[in-house]
Amino acid sequence: MRVAFQGELGAFSQQAILQLLGAKARSVPHARFDQVFAALDKGSVDAAAIPIENTLHGSVYANYDLLLKYDFTITAETNVRIVLNLIAPPGMSFGQVRKAYSHPVAIDQCLEFFARHKRVERESFYDTAGAVKMIMAERPAGGAAIASELAAKMYKARILKRGIEDDRQNYTRFFLLERAGSKARVNRSGQSPWKTSLVFSTRNMPGALFRALSALALRDLNLVKIESRPLRGKPWEYLFYLDLLGKRDDAAVKNALAHLAEVADFLRVLGSYRAGV
Amino acid sequence: MRVAFQGELGAFSQQAILQLLGAKARSVPHARFDQVFAALDKGSVDAAAIPIENTLHGSVYANYDLLLKYDFTITAETNVRIVLNLIAPPGMSFGQVRKAYSHPVAIDQCLEFFARHKRVERESFYDTAGAVKMIMAERPAGGAAIASELAAKMYKARILKRGIEDDRQNYTRFFLLERAGSKARVNRSGQSPWKTSLVFSTRNMPGALFRALSALALRDLNLVKIESRPLRGKPWEYLFYLDLLGKRDDAAVKNALAHLAEVADFLRVLGSYRAGV
Repeated sequence: MRVAFQGELGAFSQQAILQLLGAKARSVPHARFDQVFAALDKGSVDAAAIPIENTLHGSVYANYDLLLKYDFTITAETNVRIVLNLIAPPGMSFGQVRKAYSHPVAIDQCLEFFARHKRVERESFYDTAGAVKMIMAERPAGGAAIASELAAKMYKARILKRGIEDDRQNYTRFFLLERAGSKARVNRSGQSPWKTSLVFSTRNMPGALFRALSALALRDLNLVKIESRPLRGKPWEYLFYLDLLGKRDDAAVKNALAHLAEVADFLRVLGSYRAGV
Repeated sequence: MRVAFQGELGAFSQQAILQLLGAKARSVPHARFDQVFAALDKGSVDAAAIPIENTLHGSVYANYDLLLKYDFTITAETNVRIVLNLIAPPGMSFGQVRKAYSHPVAIDQCLEFFARHKRVERESFYDTAGAVKMIMAERPAGGAAIASELAAKMYKARILKRGIEDDRQNYTRFFLLERAGSKARVNRSGQSPWKTSLVFSTRNMPGALFRALSALALRDLNLVKIESRPLRGKPWEYLFYLDLLGKRDDAAVKNALAHLAEVADFLRVLGSYRAGV
């Protein structure tokens, strides 16, 4: 099974693929998210793993947009804890580290580490895993990287300090996408509840959202996420992304979706899948 | 008036301050968002400008968290269009550019430019405005930067190509924050409608959110944003961020807030302000 993701080998997206499908799935790196979607569309891969939400940074709107543009199905989700490690070539000791290369977003999540170790300079790099690849290939003097454990393994580097991120409540939620009709065999221990993700739009929000939610509330369905987004170029029209507990062919969910379709201008079910652990 | 912001001088946050308060306000740069909030808290500045939402990247959860941690009031909002320009020291022509330094997020928003001009290499830098400062101070051979027009002005650099971003629908929404009791004199042409931002939490989402929204819907109040966030460490409890049209001392808003306080476990009004243009 070939699975597209955005980033270099060793990226957190690849960790998501490992969690979802195990080591047998082949991860196929792409530079940009639109290339990941295009690869799945033209069939050069069997699935794609995309980040959709991070506990510190919020939803990845760009990927929600791409979900709407293409007609794929969400077949699984998983949550990856973003653990940032200080990584160096084998043989380098922590005392020798003078520079830490990483993506600025990752560097900004390790500010306490840099405050405690003032001799270590921050060096901006385009990618976390790419920084590990670079320090291994070029061996800049005193150069270490900040990236995932997977990146250290992939490039045969060594972790000098584990978990140097400031906030441990840093998780990214990933979706596995497939073309309509296919079904991934996802790794799963235990049986987590089903979730269904959908997107709908309404005009004139005050009554409209309330009416739309009545379709769920009247059937005692549990909402687990809701997010509104103004529709581009259409004042007072909104897109809502919503996750609920249940499977799209459960009777209550089916009825709620039919009811929702009546009150919404547009409705699309993005997929039903087991909640990620 | 002294206004804290995160980033280097010339950052888009400083553009927000200009739009909100004009050129007389003094912008005070800080490296991190928590330092911006702390500066306002201890009184070393009179206000703070923080990004809260971007049309491509979603909400800035970290700042929503800081809003909850401190007890400031939102007194104004503004939307900054994120225009990215290729900027070089005076005298350098576009044909001489070999490297473009910028924050990787900005670089990733100019992929069509790099596809068209393959001789220009991408060079990761910790900050967009900081990249302009660096190319002016150090003049690396063939080195240009990608940043705001304001950054070009601040560091007396020249714009070689204007608006090289892929997506023009790239806006960041900023809040102006003040300590309770103060009131900024915000620049305003015309009278845009009032908005009120609030945050509340509920247990057991299915009925709870529906009931909470009834407090607004029954009074014909217009919701303009809703977003849910799971409460850390409390499964099935949620925080909702909500913006509605109206002022907190309008009769309908007052009644809705009293009603909402009955059904929510926790409710805080973050501020009422004129909608940003």
